Amino acid sequence: MVGATGAVGRIMVQLLEQKPGLANRFKFLASARSAGSRLVFAGREHTVELLEPAAFIGVDLVIASTPDEVSAEFLPAAVAAGCKVIDESAYFRMHPDVALVIPEINPQDAINARGIIASPNCSTTQLVMALKPLHDAGRVRRVVVSTYQAVSGAGLVGTEDLINATRSHLEGSTYEQRVFKSPIAFNVIPQIGGFKEQGYTSEEMKLVYETRKILGDPSIRVCPTCVRVPVVNCHSETVLVETERPISVPEAKRLFSAFPGIQVIDEEAYGGYPMPCDCTGSDLVFIGRIRQDLSHPNGLTFWCVSDNLRKGAATNAIQIAELLASHAARTENRWGPVFSALWIQCVCVSRRRQ
Amino acid sequence: MVGATGAVGRIMVQLLEQKPGLANRFKFLASARSAGSRLVFAGREHTVELLEPAAFIGVDLVIASTPDEVSAEFLPAAVAAGCKVIDESAYFRMHPDVALVIPEINPQDAINARGIIASPNCSTTQLVMALKPLHDAGRVRRVVVSTYQAVSGAGLVGTEDLINATRSHLEGSTYEQRVFKSPIAFNVIPQIGGFKEQGYTSEEMKLVYETRKILGDPSIRVCPTCVRVPVVNCHSETVLVETERPISVPEAKRLFSAFPGIQVIDEEAYGGYPMPCDCTGSDLVFIGRIRQDLSHPNGLTFWCVSDNLRKGAATNAIQIAELLASHAARTENRWGPVFSALWIQCVCVSRRRQ
Repeated sequence: MVGATGAVGRIMVQLLEQKPGLANRFKFLASARSAGSRLVFAGREHTVELLEPAAFIGVDLVIASTPDEVSAEFLPAAVAAGCKVIDESAYFRMHPDVALVIPEINPQDAINARGIIASPNCSTTQLVMALKPLHDAGRVRRVVVSTYQAVSGAGLVGTEDLINATRSHLEGSTYEQRVFKSPIAFNVIPQIGGFKEQGYTSEEMKLVYETRKILGDPSIRVCPTCVRVPVVNCHSETVLVETERPISVPEAKRLFSAFPGIQVIDEEAYGGYPMPCDCTGSDLVFIGRIRQDLSHPNGLTFWCVSDNLRKGAATNAIQIAELLASHAARTENRWGPVFSALWIQCVCVSRRRQ
Repeated sequence: MVGATGAVGRIMVQLLEQKPGLANRFKFLASARSAGSRLVFAGREHTVELLEPAAFIGVDLVIASTPDEVSAEFLPAAVAAGCKVIDESAYFRMHPDVALVIPEINPQDAINARGIIASPNCSTTQLVMALKPLHDAGRVRRVVVSTYQAVSGAGLVGTEDLINATRSHLEGSTYEQRVFKSPIAFNVIPQIGGFKEQGYTSEEMKLVYETRKILGDPSIRVCPTCVRVPVVNCHSETVLVETERPISVPEAKRLFSAFPGIQVIDEEAYGGYPMPCDCTGSDLVFIGRIRQDLSHPNGLTFWCVSDNLRKGAATNAIQIAELLASHAARTENRWGPVFSALWIQCVCVSRRRQ
């Protein structure tokens, strides 16, 4: 594992600790700054090793949660060393030879992948999870999405910024934010990432391009606006979808409910919808406020919340690993001990789901 | 003035204090609970009088910022007493005999009004301000709006709830919220108002109906989602507009910039857009992030922020009063001392704008 001490890496470690048989089968890599530090995994202390090409030799599977430039520099060496590589960063996602995978949606892309398998951007993952059952049933033509994104998406320092800036605001003292360029306490910031084409930000363009790639349909049109809100964890989204044939609210509820990884919370009552405060720590994508679009006969609109560190990042990466392990167990002679342990867990999970 | 001690009423008092010649020309009315309390206006202490029909006798102008049920009970008596009546509440807005007015948009409706003149809902006012120049230039056909609404829209107790709940959250103590039914600290709540038709809330349906009424075009289709965010003051909105003829980004910027009461802040740089933290205390509607809609050839999308207590409420009501005063000065023999003072101010404002 590369990047185990970051916001997503910590959750990945927690998730993997719950899986039996992995305690001695992981090693942890980091750049020179963190190499040599210690980390407890499944009750055993590990020394974080230096991230360098030689570290990948003899490894089955690499899960990387690092900044784009670290992935760019080191992951090709992991592929060259024969590892399966799952990358949380944005760097390789849109590369034509890279699979961009949500296991509930396009597992075959992970299985067919020759090189890096990328996990999508957090705000994209929950959106595409919600779109997939509608796309299968009625063909999604257009998506308008506005996000309410938590600060944990900006890493551990993002959360520190929100907590410290809020405390300072209440006390009347000052705090110099480290990651957000505008005040985050009691404010909303309509910019995530740098500005790219046509005035859209990088976070917004990820929603456009990654959605199309994961659903395998470049004709889907997406109009996104990404906004940072003073919430610690869990991204929320308002989503408007136009489909080729109209999908009624009752049908949409059935489609969402039947889709693995989605939970519908939709009652016309106070609290009868998902909110960030209730969704932290869950691996699911929550959908509520499902309504007919009042502005288009083929439109449907809803509210979607998910833990951006879980299904939006760590959970999805580990689900990809389990998928690879399960496939390797069924089809290949060569599969290593990490895959074996993950595969056992994978069988348990799929049994629980049935 | 009815309701001078509420969140909007306080701002109205501040705004009116800046206008010369009104010090002895206002009286303050409140229900039995607050009647008898004292209030300083323009350096002079006033005793709040009991809100009852007889209190309206001899009054030129009533400005009411009260809950719906108080407006419903008392304002017809003010009309019967011959007062001009400006109502901030939602109660009368959609009544066919009531004018719903934003002075920059439909001043004639205020001038022609025989009875109550209603000021629109806060989230509607800033939306319709933004739509009007686009509607005049290219005819708005469809609007998709997602709101990021501040707690001050829920009154003074809404702000207390956010501040106290946030402080408790940081301290690890508990605080029982008084107005919000779900946690407001570090959370977002996708419900404002009660549930009405087709799963939409009352706040959302205001955006649908009031937009059509103010623009005088019942064919405009609106799909709204209203969300409460942990921001003290200023509502933000993502807006997607489809027009009959396409409006380019440069044209939209020109149209917005030329419209009175709108300020464009739109640069592709950190902070190059309006945010709640910068817009509190302004009477303007701020627009940024103006982009071509990536999902429709006739679509335009943008971000809109305004002080919901100012242009969204108090400022708009006082602008209506100034409009009536200005009209009365030009056309009527009978106009009272309050109108006279407001009219003088109104002339100054319009001179400053030129």
